[in-house]
Amino acid sequence: MELQTAKGVRDIPPEEKALKNQVVNTLTSVFELYGFQPLETPILERYETLAAKFAAGEESDALRETLKLKDQGNRDLGLRFDLTVPLARFMAMNPMLKMPFKRYEIGQVFRDGPIKLGRYREFWQCDADIVGSPSLLADAECLAVIDAAFKKLDLPVIIKVNNRKLLNGILGQAGIEQKQEAIIALDKLDKIGSEGVSKEMEQRGYTKTQIAKVLSMVKSKVTLTQLKKNLTSEEGRQGIAELEELFRYCRSMNITSVQFDASLARGLAYYTGTVFEAYLTKGELKSSLAAGGRWDAMIGKFLGGNRDVPAVGFSFGLEPIMEALKLKNNVKIKPAVVVYVLPIGTEKESLQLVQELRQNNIPASMALGKKGVSKNLEYASALGIPYVAILGEDELKKKKVLLRDMRSGTEQLLAVKSILRKIKP
Amino acid sequence: MELQTAKGVRDIPPEEKALKNQVVNTLTSVFELYGFQPLETPILERYETLAAKFAAGEESDALRETLKLKDQGNRDLGLRFDLTVPLARFMAMNPMLKMPFKRYEIGQVFRDGPIKLGRYREFWQCDADIVGSPSLLADAECLAVIDAAFKKLDLPVIIKVNNRKLLNGILGQAGIEQKQEAIIALDKLDKIGSEGVSKEMEQRGYTKTQIAKVLSMVKSKVTLTQLKKNLTSEEGRQGIAELEELFRYCRSMNITSVQFDASLARGLAYYTGTVFEAYLTKGELKSSLAAGGRWDAMIGKFLGGNRDVPAVGFSFGLEPIMEALKLKNNVKIKPAVVVYVLPIGTEKESLQLVQELRQNNIPASMALGKKGVSKNLEYASALGIPYVAILGEDELKKKKVLLRDMRSGTEQLLAVKSILRKIKP
Repeated sequence: MELQTAKGVRDIPPEEKALKNQVVNTLTSVFELYGFQPLETPILERYETLAAKFAAGEESDALRETLKLKDQGNRDLGLRFDLTVPLARFMAMNPMLKMPFKRYEIGQVFRDGPIKLGRYREFWQCDADIVGSPSLLADAECLAVIDAAFKKLDLPVIIKVNNRKLLNGILGQAGIEQKQEAIIALDKLDKIGSEGVSKEMEQRGYTKTQIAKVLSMVKSKVTLTQLKKNLTSEEGRQGIAELEELFRYCRSMNITSVQFDASLARGLAYYTGTVFEAYLTKGELKSSLAAGGRWDAMIGKFLGGNRDVPAVGFSFGLEPIMEALKLKNNVKIKPAVVVYVLPIGTEKESLQLVQELRQNNIPASMALGKKGVSKNLEYASALGIPYVAILGEDELKKKKVLLRDMRSGTEQLLAVKSILRKIKP
Repeated sequence: MELQTAKGVRDIPPEEKALKNQVVNTLTSVFELYGFQPLETPILERYETLAAKFAAGEESDALRETLKLKDQGNRDLGLRFDLTVPLARFMAMNPMLKMPFKRYEIGQVFRDGPIKLGRYREFWQCDADIVGSPSLLADAECLAVIDAAFKKLDLPVIIKVNNRKLLNGILGQAGIEQKQEAIIALDKLDKIGSEGVSKEMEQRGYTKTQIAKVLSMVKSKVTLTQLKKNLTSEEGRQGIAELEELFRYCRSMNITSVQFDASLARGLAYYTGTVFEAYLTKGELKSSLAAGGRWDAMIGKFLGGNRDVPAVGFSFGLEPIMEALKLKNNVKIKPAVVVYVLPIGTEKESLQLVQELRQNNIPASMALGKKGVSKNLEYASALGIPYVAILGEDELKKKKVLLRDMRSGTEQLLAVKSILRKIKP
């Protein structure tokens, strides 16, 4: 038997996992600073629950990509494909929850889809949502979290912001009833330009007049003020009013990275108001690093009634964020081990030394085998350990340790106290 | 449709998840201080890989409990039931890894077994292993991690330690060839006493002479010195020598919580030397909080050859640790939100205030709705938020904020600077 991973999944080896943990810890600390509480939902869901999201005919791709299984009681189960359905189910099962409910969840989701570069069948999502508040203050909170997180990650971003009501208004004013496909085409304005969008809309069956009307209003750099002059649709004007209110909150919160973008649509069907996406301000990475919006309809549908349960939220893209950090070339991953203790006939004292280092909060390991000095130095070097503390009979007599700096290759005979001072955690 | 979780799994609501995160973060920090590196393996494995563990006829229960599924390419997959098989596969796929390889992994595993109180079909394991060192220094490192972790968690434990070679020697000297079942019976000595073990061994077909011989050597409080006098078996004496060496290392490392226990066996078949289990020194909780041992044979089997790949490691029991912390009654979970900002007609200034609190590292939320003051105080109280900062027109004029201490109900008119001083993170 050849041992290998299942198709479309992969191991995260130590160095990459260390970076991932750093990103996850940073995002977690920002979520908690902004008053979001952690929630953990199971990976296994009843298949019926997962399918409920698509009852309305939305996104049947994701359901086709759901990994199905049965337990021994022949119950139909599935692996969750996002963290939104479990949240909706959790809300339904806990009607006494105090609203607004601000939660974040970070964990694996599964999609049995085509495998592309950087796309896996098992990957992490990193979501924050505010359920139960229709106020645009909640939308502003989401933008504030994104702004703070990327400042903490030292990744300069702009957050493009738009509103579905504005888009609907523009399309309605152009006489377009079937808005979904037009929204998907418009979303590509930045990538394929006006001509590209025009061509795609034609293919999707919109008339030249409709297309011309839409593109006369939605230009890549159009401002809210310009749009306001041309827009008569009531829904569109409500979208503008919401955007103005939202940007006012952003100014009060000193969120400087937001920027209106009339073409931003976001592919998903269930957004009902604000939508936003964060991109690096420069560099080659084109993927969005975070994205979300207001989705006031879905939880209500899940609850079975027709009432709206307002919700606004977003996901951080863990993979593109890690990619962006790696491209910066100056990611500092703390070395897993700072000091490697190498006993030469001094096991007892070396064990004491390694424990003393740890008690002083210095990550330390000790040579565990009978290998010689040079093999052990090779090992320390391969693991990127910055210091090796060599403790032989000679050093022991002098009550000192020979500390080797692995980067410079220099060695110093030092007392343990001096080592602790030198290597502050 | 009634929305509910799948059978045998559950949601971890915010308060419990916050405690879980605290425990996971504590364990992670200890792992890293002791030089273990993080690894992440996928939840999906090829079914063939999972089944390989049982090729040797071990533990077929766990394989029967494996959740099987197929991807759209009709490939047989399974959800991992432990973190050991993925580690063995990872070692096999990465032959260039530097040894010893010290890794930890924390994540979900799945078993479609009978549901008992506190036993779920999806649960977390929390493993650390050292692969590639036959030295008992590695075993001592594991005990050091466990000792340090429980000190940091403020849970006093004793770690019972034994050695499979010693057990094998004792059983061999009593003329017992079929050792596995005898080991399982002996493991219950603490629970059911000598008489209970004797009865169980009889039922399993051992002779009275055999049983008497075993029980004359293995008593609940027998010491290594006493055993040494009576034991002639070579394997048994090797077990004693290993235990003596291990305890010597523990003394050098100042690990005071270890204790020899001749009856400790650990149910699993694949241990080859040291075995250990950590228990609370007092209290009602009888489950072990951490357990492990040396398993030198399994990875070699996985690699297909017959060579041994030495390994020693252990698991923390996340659930029993959380249970133990809860029973202590003095778990301090940091409140998710420390200050709840309540604007009364002062949205702009309140947004500035909530952001200033966050910039000073104080977790803060703001009222997002149009609810009145008393509804908002109720909300803050239900969420266990210790302070509410009320900002109305009056306060604004005085350039102060009305800070309400939710525990005492007292209110103080304070400048923002004073609030920051009062509520240090």
